Amino acid sequence: MKKIPRALSEVIENFERLPSIGPKSAARLGFYLLAVPDGFADKLADSISNLKKRIKICRTCFGVGESDECEICKDVTRNRKIICVVERADEVLAVEAVGGFNGLYHVLGGVINPLEHVGPDDLKISELLERVVKNEIEEIILATNPTIEGEGTALYLKKKLEENNFLGKISRIGSGLPMGAELGFADSVTLSRAFEGRREL
Amino acid sequence: MKKIPRALSEVIENFERLPSIGPKSAARLGFYLLAVPDGFADKLADSISNLKKRIKICRTCFGVGESDECEICKDVTRNRKIICVVERADEVLAVEAVGGFNGLYHVLGGVINPLEHVGPDDLKISELLERVVKNEIEEIILATNPTIEGEGTALYLKKKLEENNFLGKISRIGSGLPMGAELGFADSVTLSRAFEGRREL
Repeated sequence: MKKIPRALSEVIENFERLPSIGPKSAARLGFYLLAVPDGFADKLADSISNLKKRIKICRTCFGVGESDECEICKDVTRNRKIICVVERADEVLAVEAVGGFNGLYHVLGGVINPLEHVGPDDLKISELLERVVKNEIEEIILATNPTIEGEGTALYLKKKLEENNFLGKISRIGSGLPMGAELGFADSVTLSRAFEGRREL
Repeated sequence: MKKIPRALSEVIENFERLPSIGPKSAARLGFYLLAVPDGFADKLADSISNLKKRIKICRTCFGVGESDECEICKDVTRNRKIICVVERADEVLAVEAVGGFNGLYHVLGGVINPLEHVGPDDLKISELLERVVKNEIEEIILATNPTIEGEGTALYLKKKLEENNFLGKISRIGSGLPMGAELGFADSVTLSRAFEGRREL
């Protein structure tokens, strides 16, 4: 739209590049920032430009933190013998928000995906194997997502851990119907998983 | 979530304050900005902090521009005898995007809304009346939204224009079923408007 002043269209175009923000939402956000008091737009801009300067990747688990080692890896009250392996750093927070898990994490940084040229060497897999040996880990929970790539990566990790003579427990997060779902609307893979993963009551 | 580093939670909190962005989207955006190359986060931050510095409100129509008078008001090829009255500056762009209207605009800056303590004096109404007289306007299109407040504001404007001896045409944008809608699913007010606004074919 040629009538939009450039300073505004720049903001709108940048917002559009963010995930899940379409052209209409981006325009709405741009006009919203114009209308709110000055302070807020500046605060938002500052927090965004500070983000990369202040956030560090944890050298142990590859999650996010404000120093070389994240708060979770530093926390001595957690069970240091269990590692939960996830794909991305934000998934650590999703699991933390639930609050039931008290072990440590390992962020792979993605999944093995040949179509997108992501191989095992692109992920933090060797670092995981090293960490497992060094810290005498007793259980590994493979919490990659229940997608084709996530499943494949979990199987690959299991194989690698066994090749490295890992003798602890290797588990995979449960798969089946989510809470509140109905059998009639579930897809066939989910349904067959739910039957495979049935538990005695 | 206490485990999120502060620089990241600040960005997430700021995103959450934007319209139509909930806690999950905000977290997603925060992590997205962490993962993209440095350049983009800086560009986004710069464009936001530049926004208010570079955008000016047009002294004639109260739309947005980069100088004291906006591009539309400066454009001599437009029909300067017709003014379309809208509530907010972004609605100018919505009408412009359609492309059929070639007149000028007037942005009220809201609608009369006693419940939110917005009275006629809080809007650019006296400026509109002045402009109408000064420029010998021939038609005013009242394009406030078809809400209770928008309708009320349109009626108020009509009354005020007539009190000010405006002799030109005053019109209201059409109201009825939107394209693609079905009679059976329309609400009763929309349906009765569609019948009131019927046209001979």
